[in-house]
Amino acid sequence: MNAHPNPPARGFPPSEFEKRLVRAQTMMAQEGLDALLLCSEPEVRYFTGFLTQFWQSPTRPWFVVVPAGAKPIAVIPEIGAACMGRTWVDDIRTWSSPDMEDDGVSLLAETLREVAGRDGKVGLPMGHETHLRMPLADYARLRELLGDLEFGDATAIVRALRMVKSEAEIAKIAYACQLVSNAFEQAGTLFHVGQSETDVFRAFKIECLKQGVDDVSYLVGGAGAGGYGDIISPPSGRALEGGDVLILDTGCTFDGYFCDFDRNFGFGDVDDGARQAYETVYRATEAGLKVVRPGATCVDVYEAMQKVMSAAGALGNAVGRLGHGLGMQLTEWPSHTPQDKTVLEAGMVITLEPGMTFAPGKVMVHEENLVVREDGPELLSRRAAPELPVIG
Amino acid sequence: MNAHPNPPARGFPPSEFEKRLVRAQTMMAQEGLDALLLCSEPEVRYFTGFLTQFWQSPTRPWFVVVPAGAKPIAVIPEIGAACMGRTWVDDIRTWSSPDMEDDGVSLLAETLREVAGRDGKVGLPMGHETHLRMPLADYARLRELLGDLEFGDATAIVRALRMVKSEAEIAKIAYACQLVSNAFEQAGTLFHVGQSETDVFRAFKIECLKQGVDDVSYLVGGAGAGGYGDIISPPSGRALEGGDVLILDTGCTFDGYFCDFDRNFGFGDVDDGARQAYETVYRATEAGLKVVRPGATCVDVYEAMQKVMSAAGALGNAVGRLGHGLGMQLTEWPSHTPQDKTVLEAGMVITLEPGMTFAPGKVMVHEENLVVREDGPELLSRRAAPELPVIG
Repeated sequence: MNAHPNPPARGFPPSEFEKRLVRAQTMMAQEGLDALLLCSEPEVRYFTGFLTQFWQSPTRPWFVVVPAGAKPIAVIPEIGAACMGRTWVDDIRTWSSPDMEDDGVSLLAETLREVAGRDGKVGLPMGHETHLRMPLADYARLRELLGDLEFGDATAIVRALRMVKSEAEIAKIAYACQLVSNAFEQAGTLFHVGQSETDVFRAFKIECLKQGVDDVSYLVGGAGAGGYGDIISPPSGRALEGGDVLILDTGCTFDGYFCDFDRNFGFGDVDDGARQAYETVYRATEAGLKVVRPGATCVDVYEAMQKVMSAAGALGNAVGRLGHGLGMQLTEWPSHTPQDKTVLEAGMVITLEPGMTFAPGKVMVHEENLVVREDGPELLSRRAAPELPVIG
Repeated sequence: MNAHPNPPARGFPPSEFEKRLVRAQTMMAQEGLDALLLCSEPEVRYFTGFLTQFWQSPTRPWFVVVPAGAKPIAVIPEIGAACMGRTWVDDIRTWSSPDMEDDGVSLLAETLREVAGRDGKVGLPMGHETHLRMPLADYARLRELLGDLEFGDATAIVRALRMVKSEAEIAKIAYACQLVSNAFEQAGTLFHVGQSETDVFRAFKIECLKQGVDDVSYLVGGAGAGGYGDIISPPSGRALEGGDVLILDTGCTFDGYFCDFDRNFGFGDVDDGARQAYETVYRATEAGLKVVRPGATCVDVYEAMQKVMSAAGALGNAVGRLGHGLGMQLTEWPSHTPQDKTVLEAGMVITLEPGMTFAPGKVMVHEENLVVREDGPELLSRRAAPELPVIG
């Protein structure tokens, strides 16, 4: 495990964005696209470096147009001009937003017309894991204004681009993983029997911030006697009791990049069923790690982990997959499922997340983060203990 | 100002959701809708109470169908079944997600067919401030599967419902406002000359958590000599200097409801331009507060505030509005603009957010949160000081 004691540099040099652009334009040429239209937070940030929490306001749409042979053009609300002006983007077109009559639609249409001509082809992401972050009625109006342009699905392009990370991206994810690994190591002093779940969550969030993460963007979990029932809920007001198993699953960010892993803790006398389930998902992770290398598929990784859990009598898995990509988002393509034949490549950052129902209403989930290297996996999270850690 | 020393109860009683449903179905009847289709986080939560940070994962779509005469039906990934099972919803239909071939689309189509019949009308939000949170290609497939159903825009319904808050909703927002007011009152001990912006942000996040907020979901701002240049950026690494003005604008949550207000602080000798700009936006807020009452419009509120700033020589405002609604989202309808003729009603929770460029590249923004009552505004944030607070 590499140590990452110093924070990596924030932002990226222009060369990072130039490389992304060249890769995009190469694929655009193959697919005959004259322009890419992007409107969601990670897509806009990927091509521009525009980083702001302001996306949490749903009011205003934001657009980036990637031409076939020039730098990206930002078509954005005026409130973002100063922040976008500090990125590598030169061509920033703004309107005063919110505008209830025309919230950037005509400005976007003009820009696409300029870039794609009278009968060009525009690609935008329409597929799995993508969203149209503009009002549906505005999208319909855009299509009307540009009736002679063809619109096609560009999911494959953004997916291929974003799945393989640069070393600068990997360093940010690795750093977030190290900080959160440090925070989890404080569990013995942070958590105790009698503490409410709400206070457990609060203590852990503060610890992660003290360790140096920018934001605790995601923290879910729960506790219960001998196991927990689901892994996506906010904390209940219930106090921890002896015999409980607690899971915390967190996505903390550094410079806009996520870690995403969990840890389980027992309190007092934990029954054997939960301990054995913990050891099963630990071994499933080991089996997954043995399979991860360039050329293996997500199906291979899924099967290696599922085999261990099935042999141990797993009753199923409501999560629907055994891990996924991560980076600018908490979860990204691909997914470790029986369906996803994505071939692993060096530079992909993924989670291994074996999980199973081990008794009615009792779930056990384990998760690690890694980067695929030429010679196999490099763990980014500090490996969990092989046996359930017990506090008190 | 009311004090809110004790946290309000988490969640809502079923009666809250019954009232929401009746109001929705009354409007649905007026518009001839057989079903509402909802797929974004606040929409799903509004009708079900389903609260989870899991929405940060873009992978899986989530749906709620509201029939014209029955309780909402959840059509969701299996991973959410346990969490949804704790809400008032009875009819929960799940599929194993992610499914790259059919990620809930056929199950959703069956449900809509069952509810809307062979030639019914389905409403979904398509207008300003709404998003379709499912892949565009899946939406196209849904429309194909349901070719004989009419799809119309239901923005007016969700907007009307969500703009007017219940007392239980107001209590959650008020509590978040009180906690963050407490945190801002610690500014003199939290912030100091020589501290990096990154450390300013981190210290404030930790303080808000200690005060009792669930999450510091949104924190933006910046500092500069005699003023700051924009208000949506993450912190720079720059250290605070004497003469700086710092703004922090935060949306913290309690039980899924936001506050959204900012505070300005000077350090050492701050020049007169910034002090005067602060007093101008303070007076603009006072002018806005005088206008807020049921029956006034957002245009009235806008004009009252803008008049004060124009008279003081404001050079413009890149924000595009002078405040907005808030609740389950950081920003919601309506907007205080020259266009938005929304009539204020008792129970609306809004911000007053007068802002202006007072010198080239220098912005001053002020923000308070309030609920519209029969006799005028009730402040939820603790009123800012009338003169720029100076630290050190």
